[in-house]
Amino acid sequence: MEDTIQKLDAFFNPRSVAVIGATKSQGKAGAVIFENFANNEPQSVFKGKLYPINPKEEEISGFKCYKTLSEVPGDVDLIVVIVPSNAVAGVLEEAGGKHTKAAVIISAGFKEVGNHELEDQVISVAKKHGIRVLGPNCLGVFYAKTGVDSIFLPAYKVLSTGEKIISTPRPELGNIAMITQSGAFGSAALDYLSGREMGVSKFVSFGNKCDTSESDMLEYLLQDEETHVILLYLEDIKSGKDFLQIAKKVSLKKPIVVIKSGRSEAGARAAASHTGAIAGADKIYDAAFEKTGVIRAKNTNEFFNIGKALASIKPSVGSNVGILTDAGGPGVMCVDECEIVGLTVNELSESTLKKFEDLKEKGSIFKIAATHNPVDLTGSVIDDQFVISADLMFQDPTINGIIFLGLHHMPGLQERYIIEVAKIAAKYDKPIVACDIGETALALKTRKLFDTLGLPSYSSPEDAAHAMKALLRYGEFLQKNNALDAYITEYNKRKTTQK
Amino acid sequence: MEDTIQKLDAFFNPRSVAVIGATKSQGKAGAVIFENFANNEPQSVFKGKLYPINPKEEEISGFKCYKTLSEVPGDVDLIVVIVPSNAVAGVLEEAGGKHTKAAVIISAGFKEVGNHELEDQVISVAKKHGIRVLGPNCLGVFYAKTGVDSIFLPAYKVLSTGEKIISTPRPELGNIAMITQSGAFGSAALDYLSGREMGVSKFVSFGNKCDTSESDMLEYLLQDEETHVILLYLEDIKSGKDFLQIAKKVSLKKPIVVIKSGRSEAGARAAASHTGAIAGADKIYDAAFEKTGVIRAKNTNEFFNIGKALASIKPSVGSNVGILTDAGGPGVMCVDECEIVGLTVNELSESTLKKFEDLKEKGSIFKIAATHNPVDLTGSVIDDQFVISADLMFQDPTINGIIFLGLHHMPGLQERYIIEVAKIAAKYDKPIVACDIGETALALKTRKLFDTLGLPSYSSPEDAAHAMKALLRYGEFLQKNNALDAYITEYNKRKTTQK
Repeated sequence: MEDTIQKLDAFFNPRSVAVIGATKSQGKAGAVIFENFANNEPQSVFKGKLYPINPKEEEISGFKCYKTLSEVPGDVDLIVVIVPSNAVAGVLEEAGGKHTKAAVIISAGFKEVGNHELEDQVISVAKKHGIRVLGPNCLGVFYAKTGVDSIFLPAYKVLSTGEKIISTPRPELGNIAMITQSGAFGSAALDYLSGREMGVSKFVSFGNKCDTSESDMLEYLLQDEETHVILLYLEDIKSGKDFLQIAKKVSLKKPIVVIKSGRSEAGARAAASHTGAIAGADKIYDAAFEKTGVIRAKNTNEFFNIGKALASIKPSVGSNVGILTDAGGPGVMCVDECEIVGLTVNELSESTLKKFEDLKEKGSIFKIAATHNPVDLTGSVIDDQFVISADLMFQDPTINGIIFLGLHHMPGLQERYIIEVAKIAAKYDKPIVACDIGETALALKTRKLFDTLGLPSYSSPEDAAHAMKALLRYGEFLQKNNALDAYITEYNKRKTTQK
Repeated sequence: MEDTIQKLDAFFNPRSVAVIGATKSQGKAGAVIFENFANNEPQSVFKGKLYPINPKEEEISGFKCYKTLSEVPGDVDLIVVIVPSNAVAGVLEEAGGKHTKAAVIISAGFKEVGNHELEDQVISVAKKHGIRVLGPNCLGVFYAKTGVDSIFLPAYKVLSTGEKIISTPRPELGNIAMITQSGAFGSAALDYLSGREMGVSKFVSFGNKCDTSESDMLEYLLQDEETHVILLYLEDIKSGKDFLQIAKKVSLKKPIVVIKSGRSEAGARAAASHTGAIAGADKIYDAAFEKTGVIRAKNTNEFFNIGKALASIKPSVGSNVGILTDAGGPGVMCVDECEIVGLTVNELSESTLKKFEDLKEKGSIFKIAATHNPVDLTGSVIDDQFVISADLMFQDPTINGIIFLGLHHMPGLQERYIIEVAKIAAKYDKPIVACDIGETALALKTRKLFDTLGLPSYSSPEDAAHAMKALLRYGEFLQKNNALDAYITEYNKRKTTQK
């Protein structure tokens, strides 16, 4: 297994890279990818040795160009292959002589269009030389730290107006690994994660996965300290047995959130003509995910929303939620959604209700506030009332987590309610997620402040309920498997190191 | 009924307004609301006669202040009441003498906190004088055209940094009516609709609805030419009989999209302490909505997403969807979601498949493109391939609507694919909705361009599927009731007038 990890590590930390099919022709995959390494504008430039391979060029972007891989002096850890499909096996043959550890095959035209033989040939040559292969028919790898970037979608695009604009952004370094069978979903994810300022530890698109599969990558990410959460897009699973084993092992250390598409019959047919995936019965996947603690997202929004929650805060156990709000209607909607997804929103304990009554007596909160859960401080709320109420709710032993629907619209609120509630939350080991509804500047700013202060925030009460469910269900999985304490210890250690 | 409409019209088009409880005290509801009328910064100022009522002031913002409503010279069409709950009935008594038609009662402290007697008293005085009442415990009305704005949440807020920022925006005039039982959900909706540039025809928050109910407002909106779609947030229905009758009548002319909260037992309890709503069994609501053609949204996102689709394009009939994409994975996800919500994504007809094969032969689209539906032109797509493919799919008689997942990331795409597909779409009577995934500038710009050109756009394949479902299901409802042709005629007439 050590050897596996070491080989796979060459995808992310190669000392040398050859781009087979590098070209000067603007816009071509071979040009985009080579430029990514040589001159990656928004990100760091690749720091190792870099070799363009193209029989027709002398140099590309100031780098000496070689006619063949064999001509390169010394070993080459990683090759990125963009040549036509029928030339790929030959390139791998040459790579054997260069002690290549890893190959990203961008080229399409294999299994996904029925060319199984060609793909088998690639597999067999790679195996002979002990080369780990990503792809074919993939985007490959993006790793901000070392500048490895085999994504053939250029970061920038020039519009017909002449405007140069970021088209496929590369996110900052962060704690989320994004691994995907679909390249297009991968590029969409890069755009989403960049826009929402969610950092990425490793990005991997594995396409036809003729060799390196989701299970291999999970094994690698298990030991990858930069990765705390794994987002995974799948159309099929290569080896069910491997997946069941490794996914469980990983889930005990870091959460895996999955979208498995091809759920419906028509969807499975579409998946087959996309990555050649044989989707199989969906309920089998459900069972496998359930068993291994993998969290299955129902749709794109939930996928990213849950990922954000798990990347931001600690999970916990239990299923009873406290809702703190200044917005009656959204409070009711949040109760509904919690109950629908299997959480409860029970009345607060007698002793907490008594404390809220005391607050009313003292005039600390308004008499018209509802305090039975949801705690609705009404549109007349002022910052301090949220702070004192959050503290009381955290103290209630029946509350396992808090959803804070702190809509910014109420005139008595400044930013203080966010800052001070975040401080209160830090005193307790119960998860809290936040929500503000709206799409104008202050709503975006409010959610951003929540996020920055460690309260993952959402734009609807339902999204917040789903995030809370994921935190509590994942905590439950860890506890059932006696892994919660170790997870929390590890989490706290990381937090301390970060400070 | 004529009389009802005329009275209700005084909420939106009053010749004169008195604000009872207007004040100079910054931030107070009485100050915010009076300023809304007197000096509505981002919107138009109220053009009728305006009277502040406050026994302690001589003038407010340059307007002569009256000690009581009775002192105002002449009649007053609309009063906005902000005084303490026990003084409200007295104000309505005075309003009788001023031939007041409509009263917005902002004041809380009635049924929602158990003061049923006080609310009954208000109802009885209003009835005696024939005054229509909105509220109590509500935000009332916002109508951009005349400057009526009784929302006590100020448009602007000054942050602790000193920055002045829009806090509760008022949307531009548009074709969506937003009516809501929850004020907080209402303010959130104003923020959402403003941010997404979805214009609002009328905004009404009716709180405890002691008099004017959802059914009254639906009756008014039925004849309101500015309203094409109605978004409705409910916690209960005041009179089931009235609602069943009027909702069906309205649905045949304009779609009603509803969120009905208090679905769960705990949610119903929360609703009761919010607006005093008695939610009742949720399945009864489901049946009522089904019967009347009211489209029930499952959550906040779906609510606005469906509203956008119906406000943008024509519904149609059928249930088979064509998916056109450059993104294999999102294509599969979209198929899944269509099938889950009861649509189909069948293989294209033989003749269309043949035409796609011809395109491949001619080199107009790539050989590797999948054309069985989804039509996946792959990441190598260029603008023209989308245009020619959309045309073929629209022509296929088995296709009832198209979901266009045109992700902008592919390097061969400019804006042309959006502009030209929109032109193609205009030639056909089948609905088309669009999707681009991402949260950085070009994704936002892409979705904006789709919207501007009349293709309602969404940020996930699942959201697009839900929008398409609403368009086809609403069309089916209209057709079953022999109302589709009239709807389309009306729709086309409006479009022509707009041009």
